[in-house]
Amino acid sequence: MKMFLPILFIFCLSFSASYASVQDFCVADLSMSDGPAGYPCKKVSGVSVDSFVYSGLGTAGNTTNIIKAAVTPAFVAQFPGVNGLGISAARLDLAVGGVIPMHTHPGASEILFIIEGTICAGFISSSANIVYFKTLNKGDIMIFPQGLLHFQINSGKGSALAFVSFSSPNPGLQILDFALFANNLPTELVTTTTFLDAAQVKKLKGVLGGTG
Amino acid sequence: MKMFLPILFIFCLSFSASYASVQDFCVADLSMSDGPAGYPCKKVSGVSVDSFVYSGLGTAGNTTNIIKAAVTPAFVAQFPGVNGLGISAARLDLAVGGVIPMHTHPGASEILFIIEGTICAGFISSSANIVYFKTLNKGDIMIFPQGLLHFQINSGKGSALAFVSFSSPNPGLQILDFALFANNLPTELVTTTTFLDAAQVKKLKGVLGGTG
Amino acid sequence: MKMFLPILFIFCLSFSASYASVQDFCVADLSMSDGPAGYPCKKVSGVSVDSFVYSGLGTAGNTTNIIKAAVTPAFVAQFPGVNGLGISAARLDLAVGGVIPMHTHPGASEILFIIEGTICAGFISSSANIVYFKTLNKGDIMIFPQGLLHFQINSGKGSALAFVSFSSPNPGLQILDFALFANNLPTELVTTTTFLDAAQVKKLKGVLGGTG
Amino acid sequence: MKMFLPILFIFCLSFSASYASVQDFCVADLSMSDGPAGYPCKKVSGVSVDSFVYSGLGTAGNTTNIIKAAVTPAFVAQFPGVNGLGISAARLDLAVGGVIPMHTHPGASEILFIIEGTICAGFISSSANIVYFKTLNKGDIMIFPQGLLHFQINSGKGSALAFVSFSSPNPGLQILDFALFANNLPTELVTTTTFLDAAQVKKLKGVLGGTG
Amino acid sequence: MKMFLPILFIFCLSFSASYASVQDFCVADLSMSDGPAGYPCKKVSGVSVDSFVYSGLGTAGNTTNIIKAAVTPAFVAQFPGVNGLGISAARLDLAVGGVIPMHTHPGASEILFIIEGTICAGFISSSANIVYFKTLNKGDIMIFPQGLLHFQINSGKGSALAFVSFSSPNPGLQILDFALFANNLPTELVTTTTFLDAAQVKKLKGVLGGTG
Amino acid sequence: MKMFLPILFIFCLSFSASYASVQDFCVADLSMSDGPAGYPCKKVSGVSVDSFVYSGLGTAGNTTNIIKAAVTPAFVAQFPGVNGLGISAARLDLAVGGVIPMHTHPGASEILFIIEGTICAGFISSSANIVYFKTLNKGDIMIFPQGLLHFQINSGKGSALAFVSFSSPNPGLQILDFALFANNLPTELVTTTTFLDAAQVKKLKGVLGGTG
Repeated sequence: MKMFLPILFIFCLSFSASYASVQDFCVADLSMSDGPAGYPCKKVSGVSVDSFVYSGLGTAGNTTNIIKAAVTPAFVAQFPGVNGLGISAARLDLAVGGVIPMHTHPGASEILFIIEGTICAGFISSSANIVYFKTLNKGDIMIFPQGLLHFQINSGKGSALAFVSFSSPNPGLQILDFALFANNLPTELVTTTTFLDAAQVKKLKGVLGGTG
Repeated sequence: MKMFLPILFIFCLSFSASYASVQDFCVADLSMSDGPAGYPCKKVSGVSVDSFVYSGLGTAGNTTNIIKAAVTPAFVAQFPGVNGLGISAARLDLAVGGVIPMHTHPGASEILFIIEGTICAGFISSSANIVYFKTLNKGDIMIFPQGLLHFQINSGKGSALAFVSFSSPNPGLQILDFALFANNLPTELVTTTTFLDAAQVKKLKGVLGGTG
Repeated sequence: MKMFLPILFIFCLSFSASYASVQDFCVADLSMSDGPAGYPCKKVSGVSVDSFVYSGLGTAGNTTNIIKAAVTPAFVAQFPGVNGLGISAARLDLAVGGVIPMHTHPGASEILFIIEGTICAGFISSSANIVYFKTLNKGDIMIFPQGLLHFQINSGKGSALAFVSFSSPNPGLQILDFALFANNLPTELVTTTTFLDAAQVKKLKGVLGGTG
Repeated sequence: MKMFLPILFIFCLSFSASYASVQDFCVADLSMSDGPAGYPCKKVSGVSVDSFVYSGLGTAGNTTNIIKAAVTPAFVAQFPGVNGLGISAARLDLAVGGVIPMHTHPGASEILFIIEGTICAGFISSSANIVYFKTLNKGDIMIFPQGLLHFQINSGKGSALAFVSFSSPNPGLQILDFALFANNLPTELVTTTTFLDAAQVKKLKGVLGGTG
Repeated sequence: MKMFLPILFIFCLSFSASYASVQDFCVADLSMSDGPAGYPCKKVSGVSVDSFVYSGLGTAGNTTNIIKAAVTPAFVAQFPGVNGLGISAARLDLAVGGVIPMHTHPGASEILFIIEGTICAGFISSSANIVYFKTLNKGDIMIFPQGLLHFQINSGKGSALAFVSFSSPNPGLQILDFALFANNLPTELVTTTTFLDAAQVKKLKGVLGGTG
Repeated sequence: MKMFLPILFIFCLSFSASYASVQDFCVADLSMSDGPAGYPCKKVSGVSVDSFVYSGLGTAGNTTNIIKAAVTPAFVAQFPGVNGLGISAARLDLAVGGVIPMHTHPGASEILFIIEGTICAGFISSSANIVYFKTLNKGDIMIFPQGLLHFQINSGKGSALAFVSFSSPNPGLQILDFALFANNLPTELVTTTTFLDAAQVKKLKGVLGGTG
């Protein structure tokens, strides 16, 4: 079989050359502007296995905050290897009493996998305002459809840990309280569009650093 | 030219037959189960021009309600002709003082076209909780990106009318107050996930018919 | 509640930073090359509410022309805020006797909303060459499936106004007469591929400024 | 190695069962209604290799007709194996002087591969009415972007044969002359929307069997 | 505020009715035929929170088999709630020495999250046959681009556990050895298309229960 | 009709200007970085009909190699006109005894059209490891679903020629033997993940130039 090795070698080389631009993956070049489908791809010469591995979810997030919880994302901005591949991930840490407040992901559905602890999780349908919520234990998974309001609460006696994945490299995260109370949206606009009392709005603006 | 007419005729007929199943459109058969991409298509023999025309947006919605406003949808459920075509529409009527409360469309971006009156409209980004809002006049259009919280308020002295279109036949509509206060989501879950005071939650549950 | 404000503040800031690149929207940077999915996004720092509002549809188009009609587009080139969001818009003005000639949008379906006047509109299916047309009045909407030949004619006694939206930021517009008669496509190629008489072709080339 | 065979066997069987519903392909069940994404899938038990092979393009189409040409499609209606796979095919036969008249595919881009003969092919852009056309020889391929008017003419001295493929299982085919002249679209609507003379319209309606 | 409660109530009810068909989610009705985009949706009345929760990943898979490993899927067939939502999940259990053999997912990219143990994982690019592999520890994640050959090996001293998610409700799984050696693909075809020796092929066919 | 020509001319010009950026096509600018959806578009001024025509498939590939076969691609890297259009092509030449070895296209389905000769072609499903293969003759077409292992063998007495098209401008090509034996993937990893004997692996690594 030795004799046709040279011929084959030529064959291999020519293939390597011809297909050099085939796009198996598209590691994000974060130094360039992104577009509607994601970031431009890094050249393959600048890609290594470390482009596809992310260790940032290995460390617990800091839960010493008002919500006693932390979301550590591995979206395209943190993990450029997911660019263009329709998926990303995050880690949720919830201390005792911790809560991931009511929020939406405008651009993705989410699967939650409980690694440790007990979490009460739910979402609200838009069709009929039906609330779907349940207490989840270690090993349970739950799906949250794209764009719907949902929440996770540590309902156990110890801390809880979950791994989440999203159907987009860039799912977005709109936390209701931040959207309403942590910016300069005038109190009058908040009350008019939510029917909340002005005192309630001003109180939460105070807590969350909002103005107006 | 008369002489090759018979030959051509055969040609035409055979084409009609061959392409009878080409899918130019897919008028929804609402009697069947929908799927992730929409409803099964009606047979072409059951389709007429009226499948593609909808007159339900020609009548003003009833604004004699708490929000002094009405949304009249022409989504796939009302207007089966849009099934599978990536677009739908609605009409907004806002009486003096009327407001379309804070809401999201989980499945579509929206363009608002002001036909009459003056509307203050805005949305909140998830990236940095930035509020983008402006007073719009007749002829102005505004785009609301998919899944983000947004609102419209009649900020003029007369009634306002707008036409909206969506980038999906089935955009969804999640009105924040309905999601939080018009169902059986327990008050404790609302307060825990939104930091609203229980009294505020109970008050709005009372108004909106929610329980729990 | 004041006491945990500092902690929360840190929380907020870190979120702002972490999610700074989340893509809620992608306002087109028209100075850069577009790609198959649209234009690269402007940096958020260069985006304001005016990126999402367009007033160009507020002014009637000039109908003093051969078709007594005007199409005023708000596609991505005019309205960069729609980039990547799957939707765009336009305004149609039709003077008495005005007509939007037979045309297609290669990249989008269209919804027409009649604001004023009476319009006879229709499209032709490819499956069986069936013509679907109807006289539309104020408030009616009609859907035109992607890529099919369609037209709009002012069939009333006064001027007509319509708002249209498309299922793409960049729907394209191929006007049949322009495609056949307003360029340098040789007359012989036109007659061969359309069976029109050469005299007819040359006459319309004359009117529309075509050559060949 | 014999000893662990039983264990492995169990492993295999359980995999076969678990993944029985994985959708590698979705051969169209043409007896059911299609939807926006195509036809429901046949059960795998009803699928054989013949579901993925089509011999209908092996026979020359009948070119004894007015256009001296024939299009033999292998779209989903003829070749159910392409359902859901984003591709389909057809065969073009052009006798001496044959022409595939000006047409569009509303739902797909097309690649033309010349197997035999010489074909003058072209398309017209919508952006600027630019005509792109060229004489193609054996082995040449040409791409026609989705939804744009295009044509193919046998410009050689012998018959021509081409294979075409499309970026959709259901590309559609709207032949301009059939759309305008082979149905009951009233002559007045044709003249108004195309600026063609009534005499020209009536003449072609006569040839193509149109009425009105 | 009590006085306008009745009016509001009507408003709520009419919304519930109008939007009853809005598609927030599409829980698979597995009793019906699937299509290219997934299964038809169950009626909302048949949906409960249990449609969105799956506990099957909470139990370790049986690793008493030749590969000392198990894949427990939560694809649409096992977890109907993910239908149409662009995501699914699975659990990997690897005993000491366990291996998930070389395989592809024809329809999805994959993220692997190491919960316990040490896993050597890698994939091979098609562009230049480059191998990207690395030893992953607890908390690491790795992305495997769609359709590329990849593998996971327990390279630690204890058992390993990982959670994986996919960018499709139906990612597919083609295990190389099963495809080549566990069916009736004739040995001659295997040797011709893989250059493996016939003796090697026959040996593995023997182990895996293949014939031919 | 001459008299309104000037007015029309203005109309034409203004349209040309307004729609100059409409994206009918997006010829790849290969000098720029690609992204998840393809390459940035060349400016229209740099596009000619030659951007849409490719002659590289007109010449037989060199089959003087170990597989007695050649694949000549017209993917986006060779044929920039297909960028963003969802389709590409290639030519297969198989000398007597030639074979396109077991491979996958991670990003596209494929249609094979037999122009000359006799080819035995097949693919293996992932769902149940079912092999679908058949001997194809001139004029037959076969569809290979995305991402599945497949092969083509010249099973006739003369050379064979086929034209293939893909449902992506960038289908990718992962040849099994190259992936396993033509790179630096350590022999031990190959044997562990494929159950092949080390001798077999080393033998093929020798032939294909692999190391490790």
